[in-house]
Amino acid sequence: MSDTIEKSDVVIIGGVACGPKTGATLARRMPNARITLFQKETRVSYGTCGMPYFASGDVGSFLELTTTSYDVPRTPEFFKSTKGFDVVTEAEVTAIDRERKVVTVKMLATGETIEHGYGKLVLATGAVPNKPPFPVPASEKVRAFTRPEDAINFRQAAQTGEVGKAVIIGGGFIGCEMAEATASLWGIETTLIERESQLLPYVLDADMARIVRTEMERQEVTVITDAAVEKIELNAEGNPVVSVQGQDPITADYVFLCMGVHPLVDLAKDCGLEIGGTGAIAVNSRMQTSDEDIYAGGDCVENHNVITGRNVFMPMGSLANRHGRVIAENIAGNPVEFPGVVGAFFAKVFDVNVGTTGLSETAAERVGLKATADWGAFTDKPEFYPEAAGFVLKMVYDPTGGKIYGLQAVGKGDVCRRVDVFSLLLQRQGTLDDLLDFEHGYAPPYSEALDPLHHMAGVAQARRSGIDFVSPLSGVNPNPIGECTWLDVREPAEMENSPWTAPDGRGGVVKIPLDDLKDRINELDPSKKMVIVCRRGPRSYQAALILKTAGFKDVHVLGGGTTAAMP
Amino acid sequence: MSDTIEKSDVVIIGGVACGPKTGATLARRMPNARITLFQKETRVSYGTCGMPYFASGDVGSFLELTTTSYDVPRTPEFFKSTKGFDVVTEAEVTAIDRERKVVTVKMLATGETIEHGYGKLVLATGAVPNKPPFPVPASEKVRAFTRPEDAINFRQAAQTGEVGKAVIIGGGFIGCEMAEATASLWGIETTLIERESQLLPYVLDADMARIVRTEMERQEVTVITDAAVEKIELNAEGNPVVSVQGQDPITADYVFLCMGVHPLVDLAKDCGLEIGGTGAIAVNSRMQTSDEDIYAGGDCVENHNVITGRNVFMPMGSLANRHGRVIAENIAGNPVEFPGVVGAFFAKVFDVNVGTTGLSETAAERVGLKATADWGAFTDKPEFYPEAAGFVLKMVYDPTGGKIYGLQAVGKGDVCRRVDVFSLLLQRQGTLDDLLDFEHGYAPPYSEALDPLHHMAGVAQARRSGIDFVSPLSGVNPNPIGECTWLDVREPAEMENSPWTAPDGRGGVVKIPLDDLKDRINELDPSKKMVIVCRRGPRSYQAALILKTAGFKDVHVLGGGTTAAMP
Repeated sequence: MSDTIEKSDVVIIGGVACGPKTGATLARRMPNARITLFQKETRVSYGTCGMPYFASGDVGSFLELTTTSYDVPRTPEFFKSTKGFDVVTEAEVTAIDRERKVVTVKMLATGETIEHGYGKLVLATGAVPNKPPFPVPASEKVRAFTRPEDAINFRQAAQTGEVGKAVIIGGGFIGCEMAEATASLWGIETTLIERESQLLPYVLDADMARIVRTEMERQEVTVITDAAVEKIELNAEGNPVVSVQGQDPITADYVFLCMGVHPLVDLAKDCGLEIGGTGAIAVNSRMQTSDEDIYAGGDCVENHNVITGRNVFMPMGSLANRHGRVIAENIAGNPVEFPGVVGAFFAKVFDVNVGTTGLSETAAERVGLKATADWGAFTDKPEFYPEAAGFVLKMVYDPTGGKIYGLQAVGKGDVCRRVDVFSLLLQRQGTLDDLLDFEHGYAPPYSEALDPLHHMAGVAQARRSGIDFVSPLSGVNPNPIGECTWLDVREPAEMENSPWTAPDGRGGVVKIPLDDLKDRINELDPSKKMVIVCRRGPRSYQAALILKTAGFKDVHVLGGGTTAAMP
Repeated sequence: MSDTIEKSDVVIIGGVACGPKTGATLARRMPNARITLFQKETRVSYGTCGMPYFASGDVGSFLELTTTSYDVPRTPEFFKSTKGFDVVTEAEVTAIDRERKVVTVKMLATGETIEHGYGKLVLATGAVPNKPPFPVPASEKVRAFTRPEDAINFRQAAQTGEVGKAVIIGGGFIGCEMAEATASLWGIETTLIERESQLLPYVLDADMARIVRTEMERQEVTVITDAAVEKIELNAEGNPVVSVQGQDPITADYVFLCMGVHPLVDLAKDCGLEIGGTGAIAVNSRMQTSDEDIYAGGDCVENHNVITGRNVFMPMGSLANRHGRVIAENIAGNPVEFPGVVGAFFAKVFDVNVGTTGLSETAAERVGLKATADWGAFTDKPEFYPEAAGFVLKMVYDPTGGKIYGLQAVGKGDVCRRVDVFSLLLQRQGTLDDLLDFEHGYAPPYSEALDPLHHMAGVAQARRSGIDFVSPLSGVNPNPIGECTWLDVREPAEMENSPWTAPDGRGGVVKIPLDDLKDRINELDPSKKMVIVCRRGPRSYQAALILKTAGFKDVHVLGGGTTAAMP
């Protein structure tokens, strides 16, 4: 580091994901450039997203999150000798002078303030936890979960058995991951409180979120939704007491505030850079801010959603890394563009894998897209193969042109492969026909002759040919489809093991195995609204075709069958 | 079925994969069409690809391969009542009269011969095992592995402990899967004999096949390559004795002939349909043969390879199912095209997953494409996550335009996701830039912030910027890169645990951990050819940049590091 002002320097502010990635790539492209990264904290390039797994004990030592895969700590010395750029920790950039192209840096250890010139500046200032809309007492036992200290402090407490009860406020990805960490590994009595009426409201629709909730409750997490936290106070013992509107207060040993994050844009705002409508820094496709010499990436910028054409705030370590590469290439003179995002997410919630990409049905409606949804239940490999595990898919698409909008996948099976494939196709403006044409690898230990994605496109085709699929929530009170006759076409053994009951007790259930349907079709009243149920959907589809051919008019299929409706 | 001749009928010949799929889809599209499927065997729609897992005992009963997921057997009655079309088993079609639009069918149970008219005819006659180029005695103990009888017969023998030694001739997918079935589950002393110099020669390059071979040998399978079987004879006890050129004869209790298959085209040939250069039936993109009223699909047709533009024979159950859909749509009047193939394959070989898509380096060279290959070794999720498992990737691409040609993936980790994504991108004529732009889902239980596919594109970029990567076989005798200095940049502990030795003893090994390289660069001779080694590749790449910046000219990186070179 130098305290003289060199305009040829590249200065990077922020040392978690986008910053170090930018520095490392740039040092490879321009070995002679002088690159300096300022990081406010003491740690650099730690695996933020790995913190829940350190908290849970899955990851043995926090060191594992801050070292390379060959066990060398990612210290400033490491970045200098190995990656070829300077990293200065405990160095808070307090101001940017765009006129003079200089940043002001406060060295936190000494209190000293220096100036450092830049030719190009990179903002990778990240995001910070949202401030709750209720009062929060200052206590070690009430904390967000975004900094290494949060994870380390909790784990120490958990290890020493000090935590008997935990409350997690917020049912997004981090909240759900934390619930697993507390309940599963440490056996802590855990309550999760979500303001919205479902878990993971920003990426899942209610019908898919219900599967996640069922798993949580099976794992003995108390899930409270539609719940407004009014305040958190400390009791006489110094333990937090959470007050939820209309409920008894909950006393806990630990409270985690997992209420999302917002971009840290103070520096950008103060120096007059354009802030987007999402509140994050506005950048063009080369990750340049409104000042062409200042780039920004990671959790502090907004992304362009290629499906909706709108800008979104999408704080993800994976995007941050890809931003870093694009920034470095552009500074190095290679005109590379960031293509925008579709929004691919994974999360593990106990034994259930959650994967989503693109828009949920709700999200599509919110931006005014005319969207249809279909459901399917599958095993991730042939059912005869020993390790086969299931999942439910929900696909959202344009019923007219067949353009795909999004996929939600929830279950114990391998959802990731299907979500990643779908994500790639979304990025390329794919259609249902493209899904049908997808050439997947096939061998029984891994997959079926036709992939679930082929079947989902087939379900959409079936709908286009006049078979109506209804949400798995149709089987739940309050039943959104109203009075109807339920036709259960499963085998007798299946009916007995997990009987289907009409929600609200309205309408009856007629039980006719698919194989007998043609012979017993006279038992059904063709004038009634009919919803057909099987385990996963295909038999209901076949039954619907039989009924339609026989002249039944008001025929519907329960999407994803009992697998999706009775998780 | 009728013995009157109805020109409006659809007749399907063959009842394994493409045939039943065509029938089922067509019956849904045209509920009033009369569809008849003739199947020579007694069984219909069995999971051929599941047979090795039945043979191994992984699948409990053969019934599981012939029933639906809800345990209903796929009998002719099932197809009639549930799927809506006629299936006639033990019915061999012996001739096609295209003039009269009639097929001649021999009913195998009665010997009776009938004629059945067709409006549209579908050939799904499949493939049969290749005839070995050496004499084979007639014996229950010497058999191919393509029919249910093969699997059932072997499993009975294995269960009763009659099989102490097995020889498998052919190291393709079926041969490798069978080796696992015999050696792993039944503890049978197993020898696998392959004519070529490596396992899986049609889909893997030698460097990747070596990893599979190492796993086989670790599992105590004797692998003999470059081996021409001269004959198989029965000894006095009736056991087969396999004679391999230049080796002692091998006596076994069982011999499996897994030497590939060829398309069954006799019927097509006899009635004058066009046969392609691959020996399979020629079809257009709508799966029509040279007679527009006769469609063909599955293992009896040739496919158009979209990468090479050539026709190929690619017998795969997944393609057969997709062919069936396309045929049914076209017969139903929906003009759907089959897009051609790229060639995606999975196979499980003991604990190693093998996935490939597109062209290997050898295959690309064979068709005259200018191709470059790069290697990388990865974990399938962050190394700090408990269940992380590794794999090696080899990517083949056009070094000029960046068009991707193929991916090979071998290892214990999740290769399938990356192969399926790559496959989709191959189908869409993707490039290295498209790989960099791929938006994957990210969470530590499933993936890293950057996917291995991003890193592979990064390796290709590194090569374009002048860093040469060499094959993992460079570390093996005979060393293809000749005299050089090996620079091991791993940490001391790694060097000690798995020391790197120069192949042939030629050239020395200099050990300098990456972190110390800048300080100790004077220990190296800049005039020497230098090949850098680390565990997976990234450190070598970083070291190569340091050497190049310091003026070293002849610098190379061992692709995939010791992970790929010392499997």
